[in-house]
Formats: sequence, C-alpha cells, structure tokens
Amino acid sequence: MKIALAQLNYHIGNFASNETKIIDAIKKAENLGAGLVVFAELAISGYPPRDFLEFTDFVNQCGESVERIAGHCTKTAAIIGLPTYNPAEKGKPLFNSAALLSQGKISHLTHKTLLPNYDIFDEYRYFEPNHSFSCIQLNGKKIALTICEDLWNIGDDPLYTINPMDELMVEKPDLMINIAASPFHYKQRELRLEILQRNVQKYKIPLLYVNHVGAQTELLFDGGSVALNSVGQMVCELKYFEEDFAIIDTENLHPLENQKPVPDKIELIHDALIMGIRNYFQKLGFTKAILGLSGGIDSAVTLVLAARALGEENVLSVLLPSQYSTGHSVKDAEDLAKNLGSPYQIIPIKNIYDAFEKELSESFKGLPFGIAEENIQARSRGVLLMALSNKFGYILLNTSNKSEAAVGYGTLYGDMNGGLSVLGDVYKVDVFELARFINKDQEIIPWNTITKPPSAELRPDQKDSDSLPEYEILDEILYQYIELRKGPKELIAMGFDEVLVKRILKLVNTNEYKRHQTPPILRISSKAFGMGRRMPIVARYLS
Amino acid sequence: MKIALAQLNYHIGNFASNETKIIDAIKKAENLGAGLVVFAELAISGYPPRDFLEFTDFVNQCGESVERIAGHCTKTAAIIGLPTYNPAEKGKPLFNSAALLSQGKISHLTHKTLLPNYDIFDEYRYFEPNHSFSCIQLNGKKIALTICEDLWNIGDDPLYTINPMDELMVEKPDLMINIAASPFHYKQRELRLEILQRNVQKYKIPLLYVNHVGAQTELLFDGGSVALNSVGQMVCELKYFEEDFAIIDTENLHPLENQKPVPDKIELIHDALIMGIRNYFQKLGFTKAILGLSGGIDSAVTLVLAARALGEENVLSVLLPSQYSTGHSVKDAEDLAKNLGSPYQIIPIKNIYDAFEKELSESFKGLPFGIAEENIQARSRGVLLMALSNKFGYILLNTSNKSEAAVGYGTLYGDMNGGLSVLGDVYKVDVFELARFINKDQEIIPWNTITKPPSAELRPDQKDSDSLPEYEILDEILYQYIELRKGPKELIAMGFDEVLVKRILKLVNTNEYKRHQTPPILRISSKAFGMGRRMPIVARYLS
Repeated sequence: MKIALAQLNYHIGNFASNETKIIDAIKKAENLGAGLVVFAELAISGYPPRDFLEFTDFVNQCGESVERIAGHCTKTAAIIGLPTYNPAEKGKPLFNSAALLSQGKISHLTHKTLLPNYDIFDEYRYFEPNHSFSCIQLNGKKIALTICEDLWNIGDDPLYTINPMDELMVEKPDLMINIAASPFHYKQRELRLEILQRNVQKYKIPLLYVNHVGAQTELLFDGGSVALNSVGQMVCELKYFEEDFAIIDTENLHPLENQKPVPDKIELIHDALIMGIRNYFQKLGFTKAILGLSGGIDSAVTLVLAARALGEENVLSVLLPSQYSTGHSVKDAEDLAKNLGSPYQIIPIKNIYDAFEKELSESFKGLPFGIAEENIQARSRGVLLMALSNKFGYILLNTSNKSEAAVGYGTLYGDMNGGLSVLGDVYKVDVFELARFINKDQEIIPWNTITKPPSAELRPDQKDSDSLPEYEILDEILYQYIELRKGPKELIAMGFDEVLVKRILKLVNTNEYKRHQTPPILRISSKAFGMGRRMPIVARYLS
Repeated sequence: MKIALAQLNYHIGNFASNETKIIDAIKKAENLGAGLVVFAELAISGYPPRDFLEFTDFVNQCGESVERIAGHCTKTAAIIGLPTYNPAEKGKPLFNSAALLSQGKISHLTHKTLLPNYDIFDEYRYFEPNHSFSCIQLNGKKIALTICEDLWNIGDDPLYTINPMDELMVEKPDLMINIAASPFHYKQRELRLEILQRNVQKYKIPLLYVNHVGAQTELLFDGGSVALNSVGQMVCELKYFEEDFAIIDTENLHPLENQKPVPDKIELIHDALIMGIRNYFQKLGFTKAILGLSGGIDSAVTLVLAARALGEENVLSVLLPSQYSTGHSVKDAEDLAKNLGSPYQIIPIKNIYDAFEKELSESFKGLPFGIAEENIQARSRGVLLMALSNKFGYILLNTSNKSEAAVGYGTLYGDMNGGLSVLGDVYKVDVFELARFINKDQEIIPWNTITKPPSAELRPDQKDSDSLPEYEILDEILYQYIELRKGPKELIAMGFDEVLVKRILKLVNTNEYKRHQTPPILRISSKAFGMGRRMPIVARYLS
C-alpha cells in the first residue's frame, strides 16, 4: 500500500484554514494513488488548543470539521488527530484521538494512552487515558496506531506503568503509525529519532511517524516526519521547519541513500527562531515588526533574524540614544541597518528623560542617581516603541536574552516589552554564537558589536560585568539550574564558587515576578521560561 | 482521643518558618492533652510548590524538615502533608503524601489517589497517583486518612474512576481525616461543606478536615477547617481568612450551637482580597504600596482594600492628571485619600506627554490623535509610578478590573502595570458593589466616584460606554463565557444580541496577548485569568 505523510502547519482554532489544507492533501494523495494519508496529532484543531478544549463549542467544531473531511475520503483513507468526547460517565470528558477516515466516514477511533503532563504539556488536564487496545485494518494491512507519547515510554526513565505498543503487538500488526505533536528544542531531533528507532528495534515492524511543523506562539514544531523500515533504516525523512508531503510504499521500504545531516545546535536555533517569528506574524495577520536597536548584540541578532523571517523592508529599527549611549553604539546600529538595507530612525530620549526628571525632582530631591533613573531611560524607550507600534501596526520584538531574563537584568515595562521574545530562550554565549553564524560568509553584524564588552549603557561607562559574572560562568550555572534542575549543593560540588552560586540562584528565584509579565518566548531549549516552567512568585526557596 | 486541628498560613519554600510554626502547634497540642494534631496538605513546603518539586534539593529539604518535626512528636502524634519519593521504577517520581509522625519518627505514609489537574491544579505534573489503600491506627482508633481531592469524586460529575473512601471503608474505620489545600472562590465555601457532608452521609463516620489559610501569590486559601460528627453536624469550624487552632474530642462530638453565618459574596470577596494583598506584601518582605488614583471607582476600591490590608499610612496614592482629566476626578481622588488619612501626591503628566509628542512629531505628522496618543498618557503614568516604586521600595498595585482585562480595555505597560492585580478577577458590576459595601456605614469612597459614568479620561469627554456595552450586559456575557464556558450559540440562545456576543468573544480571545503580560491576579472566582485559564495567544477561534 502507498501511504502519504502530510506534514502541515496548522492554525489553532482556524477550522476553515486547517480543513482546506487537509482536504488538499487528501486530494493530492488520492491523485498519487495512495491508499492512506496520515496527518498529525490534533491536526483538526491545531496543537496545543489548551483551554479551548473546555469549550463544548470548540470540541463540536472539531467534530463537524472531521465529518466534512471524512466526506472526501472515499478512495484514499486518512488518519488524523482530533479531540473526541469520552462517552463514559466517569473520568475526564475528552479523549485525544486518532480517527481513521475511510469510505466517506469515521470508521475507527483510537485514543491516546500516555498523556504527557510535564514541561509544556498539560494533556491530563483535558483527556482521559485510553485503556483498551486494538489495531486497525486497512487494505489488508494490520496497523498499530498510536499517538505521540504512546511510543515514548521506552527509555531509561519510564514515566508510565504501561506501554501501548506491548498491548498492540498481541495482534501481530504489520506496521506502526504514530501521529505526533513533538515540539522542537535543539536536542529533540536526535532524541526523537533515537526513540523511534528503539521502537523499531523492539517491535521489528516498520514505523511511519507524522509530526506537526510550524510555530504556535512559543512552541516551535520542526516537522521531520519519517518512515523507518523494519530494521530501523530511514526510508523517508520530511523537511525540517517547512511543510512537506511524501509517499512511501509499504512493499518497498528501501533505505534512503543520503540521510539529511543534523545541523549543529546554532544553525538549528537560527532556523527555528526564523520560523517562530514568521509564523507568529503570519498567524496573527501582521507583516511588520519594530525593535529598539541599541548597537549591542542582542538587538543586532534579533534584527537579522526578523529581517530573514519577514523581509528586511518590514522591520523598522529605532535607535534611541541617551546621554550615556556611546558614539560607537549608534554607529554600530546604523551600520547594521545599512548592511541589511533595512529602515531605521533615530529618536533621542534626552528631552523625554529630562521631562520625567523634572516632574520627579521634588520627590527625588537629594537622592543619588540609581536604578530608578536607569529604568526611566529604558521605559522612555519602551513608550516610544509602543507609540510607533500602536500608530502604524508594528509588533514590537523583544530583544532580551535568556541570561538576562534569568537574573532579572532588564527593565520591566522598558526593554522587557514586546509581543514576542525572540532570544528569551537563548543564553548570551549562544547569542554570540548566533552572531558569528550570521556573519559566517560576510560581515552583516558589525564585528565591533560582537567583540565589545556588553553594556546596558544606562549610566556612564557601565558594563554588564559590573553587576554580573562573566557570561561563560553565569550561563553554565544557569543551564545547570534551569535546564538540569541542579540544586546549590550539586553546583558547589561541581566546583562553582559557593557565594556566586547562591547569589545567582537567588537572583533567578527572586526575579520570577519580572518573567511573569514578559512576552511569550520562542522555545529552543528543553526548559524555556514560559508555559513549561511554572514557579511560585511569592516564595522563599534559595532566596 | 483529643485531636487538634492546626490551620496555618505557610510560606512556600520557607522551611525554617513553616517548621517553627508547625513545631509550635505540636507543643500547643501536647500541652492541651491532644493525642494527635492535624496539619494541611503539603504543609511542609507550602502549597502550591509548583516546579520547585522538580528540584531534588527542594524535595530533600522537605524530607529533612519532616524528620526534624517528627523528633517533636514523642507524646502527641501529627499528620502532615509533604512530597515524598516514589520508590517504584516506573511512574512519576513523587507522591503527594500525608505522614503520620509518632514516637519521634515517621510511622506511616499515605499517598494521594485523586490528583486534581484542572483550573489552577497541576498535580499530575509531579505526582504518581496512589493505588493501594489502608487505614492508619492510632491510640486504638482506626483512621481513614485521605488528601483533599480524594474526597471530591462524590458529586454528580465524577472526574475519576475510583473513590478512595470506598476502598478504605473495607477496613471499617472509626474516623475520616482529610488534609487539604482547597483555594477560595466566592462559591467554594458552600461547595466544600456540601462535599464534606456528602461524604459523612455516605460513610456515616465523623470527618476532620484541615485546610490551608493565607494567600500564595494569586491563590487565596480561606481556611474554614471543620469537624463533622457521624450524622454530619458541625462540631467545630475554624476561622476564615485567619490562622486558627482548635481541639475536638472524638468521644464527645456535640454539634455547635451557633454555626458561623456564610457572609454574602461581596463581603467574602472584600475579606479575601484584603488577605491577598496583606500576605503578598508580608511574604515578599514589603510594607508599602503605591497606586495611581484617578478619581474612578477601580483605583478607589483598590486603595481602600490596600489601606485595610497594609495600614492607610503605607499606601501612597499618586494623582496623575492630564489635560483630559476632569476637575471632579482630582477632587474625588483627593477626597478619598483625605477620608482615609492616607498620603497622596499630584504629578501632572502634561509636560511629559508633550515631550513624547515632540519627539514623535515627525513620525506622526499629519495623523489624527488616536489610540497611540491615549496610550502615551497611560504609559507616562506607568513610568512615573514605577520610578517612585523603584526609588522608595513601594510595590505598585494594579487597579484593572476583570471586565477591562477580559476585553483588553487597558494599556499594556501603562495602567496594566503592577506587582499584583487586586481587582483583576472582579467584574465591574462587583467593583461597584464592593464600593457600596465599603461605604455601608459612612462615605469613605466619595459617592460621586460611584455614581458618575466610568471613563478612562484619555480624550475629551470619553466614556467607557463609547466603546463598550453597559457593564450589566457585558459582565453577564463575560461570566457566561469565562466562568461557564458557554459558546456563541448558547449565548445567542440565551437571548443576547448576536452581533454583540460575537464582538465580545472576539475581544476576549484577541486580547490574550495583553493578559499574558499582566501581574498575578488575586483569584476570587471559579475561573480567574492567570494560572487557571490557559489560552493560546496565536489562534483564530471566535476571532
């Protein structure tokens, strides 16, 4: 049997658009003689639909949409994900289901057994786990159909007490099909392929795997749908970060001659972030971005990524120098905008700052310049950028990096503003790597921006290193604490200075209130700030 | 046996402080001759510890703390909640446990079976559910010990397929004890008592119930721990919104003569919000609040609640009039501050606004006054309030109400700023009721503030009703959509105007991006914006 893998970019809740894409792929599969076309998990609604699943109207619309789609499955069958009602009196109200559409109707429903409920996943919030197992039959093939996490209880740290494929193997299926919504982080591609291969090694039948592609606010889906033959060789590998479509023949599962090389971490992050920006704008119906360009590396990298995502003509940079901005900062910023051929304008903030200072002069009388005054500068910039955003329909891009977000080195309602944080999951050391990657063929970002010591330029001769340790050390401690959840004892045992460790962990924990109010952050690591990391604000742990 | 109920206000992750409180209560119970003292669910860590539970260091500290506490249980035993490790190879790494501490050690562990994973609850994120059941024995009594949700699968909409008390009744226990972390909303007190009484009616043995009290960021725990005798009569009812301690005698469970009356909704909200503000400041180590006082009803009610929580001398009001502020607004604001004896100052924003306008004049040339200009006013106020906050260590209180937050009628980085949103879960109609409740004995909030038409005063003669329907209608539609998850068809069937319904639901859904960046909101309803309502930002459902 020929089976098509349809790797699509869905829009959450946009039933009309998702349905059109799905029906087009069914027609294409039919024209190419496929007996079956496979779509991703919860394709009908887009993933993750989150609390829309609590609205009967939303779930009903999913049901109506799949009925209309089934009407197109008269010759070619389809497997597609959607939420369905749990008919039982007890338990959660929904299942996370895979429908087999054939002969114009829903001919079978399979429900997800293993419901991920960690990091960014909340599936137990909505869904009842499946407890009964049977394969599906199609064109003489017996198919073990599972949904995403159902294949993942195969590693060294089993999170669940059951393994759905063990149950399905009793029926001796010919083939595994898994429909997935497996979000990207820079190690996920290798991890995912390893898990899929472990399944083939264990069950010794071919595996077809169809993933989502595209960004859903902070979550980036990288695609990379695959077919593996019964000895675990890759037969077909769909594109990364793009929609794709392929057909395999189950009678002819020859290995690929040239498997796609896995790009290195920085290239993966680069490509993922561009997709993240592009989809955020497309799906919200916006075309133009604005950002504050300081001459520093964070805004420089953000600008280049945005220009690559949206077109350089669609990103307006605003240079907002203060009396503490150095001359080279303005020049570096201008040089970058010119290198890209991207529009920019300059609005000095001195007069605005002075107006604030004047109105506050009585309240602040006799007190020295301090953080309040630094923040007034950052917030004046924030007001100007938002004014332009409101007037002309730009979305403001936030340029903070993960290191700053972690330790609270940024001004709430100032440089922490924005509709989307591009680099909020990228540590400063990786921002430097991204800049070098961008410059690999030619100087796009002025080398001076990359080589000068980082500075917020909010007081004379300020440097990041005045208040923070060197980023190489800071970022390693942050990585161990945030991604790997190491505690102070473990970090000190690793050789980090005790005073430094305690100071940094305290900074991370006491700045939870700032991160609570920041824009969604494009997620490229296994533990990003945002929906996947849920911390109390009022607490006193390591602080 | 005499049993003490210890209803305490814990501080998440503050092991030293929690431990001291717990040991003090054990000593008090011992002095009063109690054989057992009962504490709340996850008392050792505070509730909810959220992703701190992913840190081995945090869980270890809970274990070390309970060992030290057990050392004090030589005469009087204790039941207390904490996270413990799941020793099994498969499944989630932790249990949500109740430890019986007696004879100086942990003599028994009971684990939670029903793990709430909806609204504000994420327990399946961390915990493996319990599957084995046995009662505990103490001083000749057989006790069916359960944890919070374990008693809640008794209503008309069973979320789970199992009922722990059914399993425990096989052993014929003498008594039920339930340790809980049951957060407040204005209908929860009646609901909770009903569920507890249903359990007694079904199992026909007495029930002791110990809840948390105090605020944990947005979550408000109202206490109200109770003992019910075997026919469901209330034997003892602890205080609401305060720490409390009581002793009952299992041999002598006479009903209370005077049960506390249930206050009406508005009084409950009033008391809950005051506790929420007070605990937020206390637990963060702050004493002073600042807010922008406009002369309107939202900031007026916020000021009164803050003054009652923190002391009127600790709340600084700043009046920030623009050229569009009416004279009566300034007077109403001043009158309120004077009525309270609370400090205030006046900072006009005209010069600051003019400075922004001047720097933007070239960019905005030829374009009419619009939302951008309105927002510059709100954001200039935001910068001034934050400057004072930064300089003097005030926490800024946000004054937005739930109706505004729902439809996006507020300025991001302007009046949506703050460390804590006091009224963000209170619909405008209830803000008016709160104001009348505050004025029930004397005019504290100027009547003019309550009776004049609401206005943002960001352009000449502006009224909320220029862009929004009357709040009576708006709030009812919002309540049906947000709290009850009614869809457009259901709302239209209820008689609401179709065009209006569609417009409002679209406003709610397209303003998710604004709410994503707002402060934590004190939760007083069954569905508040924040951790209990998780919506995609990039989506196109009803929008």
